[in-house]
Amino acid sequence: MCQPITIEPGHHVNLAAIDPAKVDGVWDKKSAAKQIKRNTEKSRDLAYKLYAENHRAVLLVLQGMDTSGKDGTIRTAMTGINPQSCQIVSFKQPSSLELDHDFLWRIHREVPRRGEIGIFNRSHYEDVLIVRVHNLVPESEWTTRYERINEFERMLTEGRTTIVKCFLHISKDAQRERLQARLDDPEKRWKFSKGDLAERKLWDDYQEAYRVALERCNTQHAPWHIIPSDLKWYRNLVVSTLLLKTLERLDPKFPEAEEGLEGIRVE
Amino acid sequence: MCQPITIEPGHHVNLAAIDPAKVDGVWDKKSAAKQIKRNTEKSRDLAYKLYAENHRAVLLVLQGMDTSGKDGTIRTAMTGINPQSCQIVSFKQPSSLELDHDFLWRIHREVPRRGEIGIFNRSHYEDVLIVRVHNLVPESEWTTRYERINEFERMLTEGRTTIVKCFLHISKDAQRERLQARLDDPEKRWKFSKGDLAERKLWDDYQEAYRVALERCNTQHAPWHIIPSDLKWYRNLVVSTLLLKTLERLDPKFPEAEEGLEGIRVE
Repeated sequence: MCQPITIEPGHHVNLAAIDPAKVDGVWDKKSAAKQIKRNTEKSRDLAYKLYAENHRAVLLVLQGMDTSGKDGTIRTAMTGINPQSCQIVSFKQPSSLELDHDFLWRIHREVPRRGEIGIFNRSHYEDVLIVRVHNLVPESEWTTRYERINEFERMLTEGRTTIVKCFLHISKDAQRERLQARLDDPEKRWKFSKGDLAERKLWDDYQEAYRVALERCNTQHAPWHIIPSDLKWYRNLVVSTLLLKTLERLDPKFPEAEEGLEGIRVE
Repeated sequence: MCQPITIEPGHHVNLAAIDPAKVDGVWDKKSAAKQIKRNTEKSRDLAYKLYAENHRAVLLVLQGMDTSGKDGTIRTAMTGINPQSCQIVSFKQPSSLELDHDFLWRIHREVPRRGEIGIFNRSHYEDVLIVRVHNLVPESEWTTRYERINEFERMLTEGRTTIVKCFLHISKDAQRERLQARLDDPEKRWKFSKGDLAERKLWDDYQEAYRVALERCNTQHAPWHIIPSDLKWYRNLVVSTLLLKTLERLDPKFPEAEEGLEGIRVE
């Protein structure tokens, strides 16, 4: 058992009450590594069937504070799955072309096609997170976005895309340690920017923005999964298990062969 | 040593003289599997540096007759590399929107961004292969495309994209066996279409179309690599080694850190 925390849609979310260092006691780093390997092998086979079936898609959305481990999760939990069936999109600061459109325009272009597992490293949720915290658009604009997101996600779901949204939940202490580690490790220093410290000062504002997004966009068709992420190995285990369970539930099948192939000899 | 066959640009290409079952004698299936694993681990680290450096890109183009193993090559030689730094694009029959543009339009949209390894499963070469064999556009149109392709590839190269073009070279016998195997294996039958047999009848026309493409688009800036592909394990070994050598030659580096980070303590 290594389940994410889920909240009943419509219920209140209290992030402060969820321990980011929570670990299910039966696991340790070593057994988790073995399990991730097993998960990946199974997910790889199911992803191949999903691709062959060419009928449905999976969209994994990863969100979390700086250093919460979005890249690391992708690296660990996805490596080993055939990259052909797995498209990753990282949403960075929008370009001026993207800003010339509604906030879902650049997102919609990148949703996975049928047969594919798409992974969003950041997503449309940035438009109610950083945008809200910094008031990048007026409140009257961002405040309606929660509903637009729910509608957009319902439309994707009806188009046979299963949406799996993960919030990588870390503590403020864990972020301090990880930022410091970036500063102290010459191989990681390039990742650090002084802007990270300014963002860290807004920790409480971000936690509140996340809380609202997790609450208002926690729907039956696309619920949020809160992943305790202070321990990297546990975070990876939970996400990799969640992906596998999603694929198992979809239970993709190889498509039927064309009619009349019996007895054909290729010359 | 497990090198692809390369031809000096400007020289004649004679596909019939190149043995698709060629294997460098020091390798067998088992030692190849080990080497592919080692290659992948090294390529993974270099791909991460390429991504961090965010300055150059690699484009691996896979072409070959039906059943030559484009999918299998991607699955075996690429699995293990972080999918985040590896984007695969499969070019199928063009959509009507794509056909409403010049032949390079849909290709250009999908070239890898800086920091990325892009893999084309089929490519703009289809526009001088299937298009030529079936005369999908008049000869006066496809005949100029070789030069347009060379120019396009030079432009990409000058934009710091290293292009690695692989032709997966199989024999007509190997194709027969593989098509028959698809028919005989219930798990593979969905891949088979009667159209495959009609295409197989055009084997010689396709070989000639490949020969011309390999000859006329074999440039200093984007040379072709001919991969003996009758033995799947050898094909995977050669491509995986070629990718690693390409990344080693690029020798990507972590970028410099921002100035003035010394002594910062995160609070």
